[in-house]
Amino acid sequence: MGTVEFLFDFGSPASYIAYRRLPAIAADARAAIVWTPILLGGVFKATGNSSPAAVPAKGAYMTEDLTRFARRYGIPFAMNPHFPINTITLMRGAAGCQLHAPGHFLAYVEAVFTAIWADGKNLGDLAVVASVLAEAGLDGGALLALAAAPDVKDRLKADTEAAIARGVFGAPTMFVDGTLYFGQDRLDFVEEALRTKTIS
Amino acid sequence: MGTVEFLFDFGSPASYIAYRRLPAIAADARAAIVWTPILLGGVFKATGNSSPAAVPAKGAYMTEDLTRFARRYGIPFAMNPHFPINTITLMRGAAGCQLHAPGHFLAYVEAVFTAIWADGKNLGDLAVVASVLAEAGLDGGALLALAAAPDVKDRLKADTEAAIARGVFGAPTMFVDGTLYFGQDRLDFVEEALRTKTIS
Repeated sequence: MGTVEFLFDFGSPASYIAYRRLPAIAADARAAIVWTPILLGGVFKATGNSSPAAVPAKGAYMTEDLTRFARRYGIPFAMNPHFPINTITLMRGAAGCQLHAPGHFLAYVEAVFTAIWADGKNLGDLAVVASVLAEAGLDGGALLALAAAPDVKDRLKADTEAAIARGVFGAPTMFVDGTLYFGQDRLDFVEEALRTKTIS
Repeated sequence: MGTVEFLFDFGSPASYIAYRRLPAIAADARAAIVWTPILLGGVFKATGNSSPAAVPAKGAYMTEDLTRFARRYGIPFAMNPHFPINTITLMRGAAGCQLHAPGHFLAYVEAVFTAIWADGKNLGDLAVVASVLAEAGLDGGALLALAAAPDVKDRLKADTEAAIARGVFGAPTMFVDGTLYFGQDRLDFVEEALRTKTIS
């Protein structure tokens, strides 16, 4: 069975679009998804890369472009009015689920991505985060407490550093057989790579 | 009949890939191509954008990514060993053709793009440029003289400034009905936009 690694940050709208599409692509190719939360801010700092939104003309285009992709794929999407959101606590929450509450990981990811990129909520506000997690049937208090645990912080930092060492410069990034694919607009190449693997 | 504007700089490998694919897409949609040489360096300076190659990890990925697209589309392509090439004279040559030798414009563009992105030549060297143009049956001396004419310099500058005013932040950029599409990887959206226009 093939494997696709998915490295993401909740603050990246392109990560959200890819998150909505990847499960069906992986299922068709009978491939497993390996989820890796990373800190995009840390990646930018280490690589010298920056958000497209740092260039006003590029940021404006990015919104139009992602909206076109969302329409093409039937994905509910709106630029978050609170963008950019500091996602460090949210990403630590994801790493915390992986380490200590793996059964809740996918529900957590779904709740956070949806709240930011479909519902336009301000997940920079921890009270809003708690409310969003509660609505998803999750124990927000317990998950946010996990996010503050040293081993969880270390895990997210180590995963981000490992990603940078492998050539990651942005999010989302996918790896198939060690080959790096960047961006929600490269899922067709990911699909090809997974299919080639399935056949061979 | 539909129209697609194509804004390009010879120094951009993504412009080359788009250049190889756009004519067939336009022909299928019975659309005319409006060619607009621009100075990518001027666009970067005005918008605050920069080349992906300015971030080492991104530059390395860009080469792999463009190579995958070239393979997908059967386009001869290799990263130019002299990259980045200062293209101001080459772009002025293109603007010069448009102003004073329009019958030679497409042959000039073909010769320059091929020399840089298929044949790996150093078109930062004017002797090499002259030789490449001569091999293409063009009067290299006359075209390079055109590149030095004040009205030609002004034309390229004005076209670059007009592009920036319309939201251009990189190359290649395509416009269909005033909508901006950035990158060789958005030609599918250009195709859709042209087809919609053809039908309506």
